Amino acid sequence: MSAIDDLTRELRRLPGIGTKTALRLAFHMVKGPKEDIHRLAGALAQVAERIHPCPRCGNYCSAEVCSVCRDPSRDRSVICVVEEAYEVGAIERTGRYGGLFHVLGGRLSPLDGVGPGQLDIDGLLERVSDPEEKPKEVILATNASVEGEATAVYLETLLRPHGLRITRLARGIPVGSDLEYVDGTTIAEALAGRREVGDGSA
Amino acid sequence: MSAIDDLTRELRRLPGIGTKTALRLAFHMVKGPKEDIHRLAGALAQVAERIHPCPRCGNYCSAEVCSVCRDPSRDRSVICVVEEAYEVGAIERTGRYGGLFHVLGGRLSPLDGVGPGQLDIDGLLERVSDPEEKPKEVILATNASVEGEATAVYLETLLRPHGLRITRLARGIPVGSDLEYVDGTTIAEALAGRREVGDGSA
Repeated sequence: MSAIDDLTRELRRLPGIGTKTALRLAFHMVKGPKEDIHRLAGALAQVAERIHPCPRCGNYCSAEVCSVCRDPSRDRSVICVVEEAYEVGAIERTGRYGGLFHVLGGRLSPLDGVGPGQLDIDGLLERVSDPEEKPKEVILATNASVEGEATAVYLETLLRPHGLRITRLARGIPVGSDLEYVDGTTIAEALAGRREVGDGSA
Repeated sequence: MSAIDDLTRELRRLPGIGTKTALRLAFHMVKGPKEDIHRLAGALAQVAERIHPCPRCGNYCSAEVCSVCRDPSRDRSVICVVEEAYEVGAIERTGRYGGLFHVLGGRLSPLDGVGPGQLDIDGLLERVSDPEEKPKEVILATNASVEGEATAVYLETLLRPHGLRITRLARGIPVGSDLEYVDGTTIAEALAGRREVGDGSA
């Protein structure tokens, strides 16, 4: 049974997977067809071998640079800064952003021991001062959490001297939600950021 | 990114793992050390290669017969019948059972298309009528669900002619729980199965 124990131990290392879930998953796999296990193992090996951070923006890619960076149709005058690489996907799926990305690899969180040195901030500063790339706008799309806000404020102080437009994602009522269930801080932000009806930008 | 997509798709096939969880797990692995991914892939390959059902009892094993069946110190006069192989572990961990097991591989559930033919009932009947093995007792440890009960009733009718002691796990109040939070059916069962205080069997 030690092979099952080994698999359970490895699964338990994943986030959100405890002992019971790991056991359930392991036994599910053992009970199912062996091809399914081999396919998962193969997919893991492929990821380990081929996926690496894009040297320019930090997005994950299997080519030399990521598909966004090497796409000639992207607007190179805007860089959207996100905390994690998987957030690139969240923005890409909207189909409403045509610029480049920069992945920080986390957020400032002194309590967790994450300072500026742990994030790819130097890379961002290099990109905004690179005469070839020289973007006109940086969108600070860090999360709307305390740490995300602090990271945005920190980045703003560093970016300000570069004479760029620095923006942040709008705060407000999520589309499709009832006011009744939206927290007060969000409503306050939505009030402060209210827009003229019919100003053409909606 | 297709390697990540492939991995996400494989993870999503596992029970209880939806698209968001699969993505989160995949990106967690990509962000972590590659050794972790290789170790998980290796553990999966080991399970696929080495783990198979014990030909006697259906428990999972990597040897010819499982560790319970080949342990000469086990009491061969009792067979505990469980639905799934992972339930063997739940009983083994109590350290209070020294007999053998028999794994059915599921429970009778006509709505899900599981009839007697899908379960290893023939194997159980062979074991109880085998003059060499010939157990004295069969514990029907199927779950306390409607399907588990139905399975136990069905097995009882088949086992009855063999002149064995046929038992079922006791029903009652789970250890450590408050009566207030225990459902009425369980309390009723606990009342019906109440025991004399100080009868020496507690």
